Amino acid sequence: MNDTAVLLIDCPDQRGLVARVSSLLYQHGANILHSDLHTDHQLALFFMRLEWELANFDLAAFEAAFRPLAAGLRMNWQLRTSRARPRVALFCSQYLHCLSDLLERWRTGELIAEIPLILSNHTAVQPMADFYGIPFVHTPTAPGASSREAVELKQRELLRQHNINLVVLARYMQILSPAFVAQYPSAIINVHHSFLPAFIGARPYHAAHARGVKLIGATSHYVTDLLDDGPIIEQDVARISHRDQVEDLIARGRDLERVVLSRAVRWHLDHRILRYGNKTVVFD
Amino acid sequence: MNDTAVLLIDCPDQRGLVARVSSLLYQHGANILHSDLHTDHQLALFFMRLEWELANFDLAAFEAAFRPLAAGLRMNWQLRTSRARPRVALFCSQYLHCLSDLLERWRTGELIAEIPLILSNHTAVQPMADFYGIPFVHTPTAPGASSREAVELKQRELLRQHNINLVVLARYMQILSPAFVAQYPSAIINVHHSFLPAFIGARPYHAAHARGVKLIGATSHYVTDLLDDGPIIEQDVARISHRDQVEDLIARGRDLERVVLSRAVRWHLDHRILRYGNKTVVFD
Amino acid sequence: MNDTAVLLIDCPDQRGLVARVSSLLYQHGANILHSDLHTDHQLALFFMRLEWELANFDLAAFEAAFRPLAAGLRMNWQLRTSRARPRVALFCSQYLHCLSDLLERWRTGELIAEIPLILSNHTAVQPMADFYGIPFVHTPTAPGASSREAVELKQRELLRQHNINLVVLARYMQILSPAFVAQYPSAIINVHHSFLPAFIGARPYHAAHARGVKLIGATSHYVTDLLDDGPIIEQDVARISHRDQVEDLIARGRDLERVVLSRAVRWHLDHRILRYGNKTVVFD
Amino acid sequence: MNDTAVLLIDCPDQRGLVARVSSLLYQHGANILHSDLHTDHQLALFFMRLEWELANFDLAAFEAAFRPLAAGLRMNWQLRTSRARPRVALFCSQYLHCLSDLLERWRTGELIAEIPLILSNHTAVQPMADFYGIPFVHTPTAPGASSREAVELKQRELLRQHNINLVVLARYMQILSPAFVAQYPSAIINVHHSFLPAFIGARPYHAAHARGVKLIGATSHYVTDLLDDGPIIEQDVARISHRDQVEDLIARGRDLERVVLSRAVRWHLDHRILRYGNKTVVFD
Repeated sequence: MNDTAVLLIDCPDQRGLVARVSSLLYQHGANILHSDLHTDHQLALFFMRLEWELANFDLAAFEAAFRPLAAGLRMNWQLRTSRARPRVALFCSQYLHCLSDLLERWRTGELIAEIPLILSNHTAVQPMADFYGIPFVHTPTAPGASSREAVELKQRELLRQHNINLVVLARYMQILSPAFVAQYPSAIINVHHSFLPAFIGARPYHAAHARGVKLIGATSHYVTDLLDDGPIIEQDVARISHRDQVEDLIARGRDLERVVLSRAVRWHLDHRILRYGNKTVVFD
Repeated sequence: MNDTAVLLIDCPDQRGLVARVSSLLYQHGANILHSDLHTDHQLALFFMRLEWELANFDLAAFEAAFRPLAAGLRMNWQLRTSRARPRVALFCSQYLHCLSDLLERWRTGELIAEIPLILSNHTAVQPMADFYGIPFVHTPTAPGASSREAVELKQRELLRQHNINLVVLARYMQILSPAFVAQYPSAIINVHHSFLPAFIGARPYHAAHARGVKLIGATSHYVTDLLDDGPIIEQDVARISHRDQVEDLIARGRDLERVVLSRAVRWHLDHRILRYGNKTVVFD
Repeated sequence: MNDTAVLLIDCPDQRGLVARVSSLLYQHGANILHSDLHTDHQLALFFMRLEWELANFDLAAFEAAFRPLAAGLRMNWQLRTSRARPRVALFCSQYLHCLSDLLERWRTGELIAEIPLILSNHTAVQPMADFYGIPFVHTPTAPGASSREAVELKQRELLRQHNINLVVLARYMQILSPAFVAQYPSAIINVHHSFLPAFIGARPYHAAHARGVKLIGATSHYVTDLLDDGPIIEQDVARISHRDQVEDLIARGRDLERVVLSRAVRWHLDHRILRYGNKTVVFD
Repeated sequence: MNDTAVLLIDCPDQRGLVARVSSLLYQHGANILHSDLHTDHQLALFFMRLEWELANFDLAAFEAAFRPLAAGLRMNWQLRTSRARPRVALFCSQYLHCLSDLLERWRTGELIAEIPLILSNHTAVQPMADFYGIPFVHTPTAPGASSREAVELKQRELLRQHNINLVVLARYMQILSPAFVAQYPSAIINVHHSFLPAFIGARPYHAAHARGVKLIGATSHYVTDLLDDGPIIEQDVARISHRDQVEDLIARGRDLERVVLSRAVRWHLDHRILRYGNKTVVFD
């Protein structure tokens, strides 16, 4: 796969947006590989993702020409290249199935990123971090708000030191403070072990079993201030029956959690997700 | 397919239940076709479904011998034969896709039942009822509780006259009174156009669109006093994307509603469902 | 929904295709609603679908300007408007579940088309055709090639008289001649009751049962000279178990056949499908 | 979870089988947890799985009493306890995603077995084997039949030394000889990266891409002499589109391969699978 550039745009809808952007790319000699757009008619918003080859393309010149055009059209935009690997920190607690899944996909090249840091309030992850050669920092929590605050300060300092662009909560069982969340808008991905908005909060598999549902689900989403209420990125479900006890739901659910989280991380790393309001556009 | 008998049992769990029932059937010469059991360990409850061939089997003699055994073991039980076709009334309002689906499955022999009655608060169903040769009664509603009460009295009288065993609400948009529901315990099946318990109440597709979910669902369930809270029989989901507007969700959802409702009705007619508490056991 | 125009393009890939077409649309004042493209890098082919609003848009002027551009870029293209309803003929034999499903979706506005004609080698469809108000022509077949030829001549004459654009084989059990197929390239949609390329030919559910598969499938495809080998449009599967006999597979399969055929027809009517070689691009 | 015993039976169908076996269990005081049966009417075969608690149950006494009963009824049977952990050898080549998945499920207790041995014709697996603390033996292959024979002799000797009950081919790219297969009937599980019987043989993802299918699949099955033709245990599929190239199919397929193989291994370890002819009964 050759190096590519990705341009993500959202702006007020108006005529000529595709023509103007694609014409500018054409003038700079871009060979467009993918182009996808979405219009939210109710909100009159326009979303676009363009990907083109970087070989023999002067990205700096294009960016210089694009910047005033985008400003005039009131565009929010991100220009990324496949050379620049996002820097990801993984947070986990005692359950390691999502972490193991992400690391294995990373090892085999399915997730393209730098992973300079694993943080956990448990030490169980140490051997796995060692196996994959990633520095692990233990951030134990003690009861009390002051302890939690101190832990978060340490976490945020570590993220800063390592220039982290994306935080992935791989079944991390602590709630992040609004200040933490505010620092990483659309850059913290969590997995919740239910088909949101059903079974918000703790012990969703117990709640699903009590309600007698016939399908269980898992949801990956960006983290916002409201618990389990951030923009949904991906969801999936599995069929269960009356034979399945809570522990069976937990076991089946692990497979769901793995896939919805890894898909969300991959799409984020591929710059396929645009967030708007409490929703996401996921360009496929 | 030859005629068969089905025995459905639920009772307090104890040793020897399978042995006693299967031995009694063996003594009466039954050739068991299907046997399925489930034990709820938390509640110490036992559930069983047995199906056997009726040819050369003296059902009356078996029932006479089984009755005291069942009483001694504190069993709730139902003994049904495939000869006795359940009598079903279909209720609908203006949306006819579920009704059409049920009638077509009935016409082609996929649903084995008598359908002597279609009731609707709209007249749109008349040509379809005529096509399938089923009497249709228009039960219009006017604003006000007294009108609703009068309509229900008429409906219940019709159900009584036609010896109805099962009421299917095929997107019937009126809420039945507790008195009505109490008269047909575990014998009214409804379809709700969401993945319960998410999006209870009116306009679930609008709510799902507003929340930005990536899958929509539908749920069939027995009707209880609590709106959209009865024992779930079947659920299914379909994938949607940011491209899908509310009207797309409604269109995709129609296919889900059809399948979850028709499966629930088929399983009920096949005596595959045991209700306990607010859950169902569905023997496959 | 307002009236829209759809432009479907396939041509050799080269730089500037998006820019040129979108610029021309912009010059004519188009408000683009959907834009999707696909590039097959191996074959160096470019595919695009554009949809825009027709209100205050001079389609004739655009087409006059687009024609030479398209010729210069060696484009195959189709320009369609949502006002022009495709004219569809439905072919069926003794199984009517797909036909019934298509007609019900058409009645409720999910499929936007004219359906001036139903053809069948059986008469069982007559009451259903009457119910939906569609002329039915019985085209019985007798053994022998000359009879088949005569039937086809009559069928093709009827299609010609009714200006049919699309033929849908809704479980039509006769094989069309190469001459018939050649007359309707990418305009005959069939449903095959297996997950192609598994179980080509007759009695696929029997073959699936004999092989002991755990999922059954159905496939909709354009008809070509090679039996069950045309470009696949849609496929879906359902889970089965050792409990399911051939008749259960047939019953479960009916639901699959309905959905894969109706989706294919809808996508074709929405001008979402581009065929190339023995494959399809389905723009979503 | 308490210790349990599992009895798997297949035999010619006749009246009274359930009664006799369950009565004998009742006489020995068994508390039956699960009972499932299946009858193949065409072949007149009977299949049953029974699971009961071992606490206060004299298994030896039951087995002594059951043996003559089973002989009289011409039963094939297996009696297993959850205490006796099957001994599993894992074979792999250069692709490690299935192996990693199995080992992680084993580490977390989802798969209950002893794994004393990993064999590979590549050395890439060494670090992973070390991480999970499992002895790894490198069995490189050189061109030529004599080399292959020598490798197999070594493999079979290792399996013998380690008292292996189950061989799992986790994307092992070598074909086992008929002699090897004959030694482990219904005890070698393979994963094939297609929806069998479609795309038998090498490079199924390339074949699927060439055919233009809309779903890809994976299949786990017992190994027999006929390549990719053994009794199917589990299958699953994933949706793809025209956008997906062969490498995307391979990546999506890895998730399918993981789940179908791990489910097959888990069901085998739980004694849920009965093989008959070229099919399986999988009791859920």
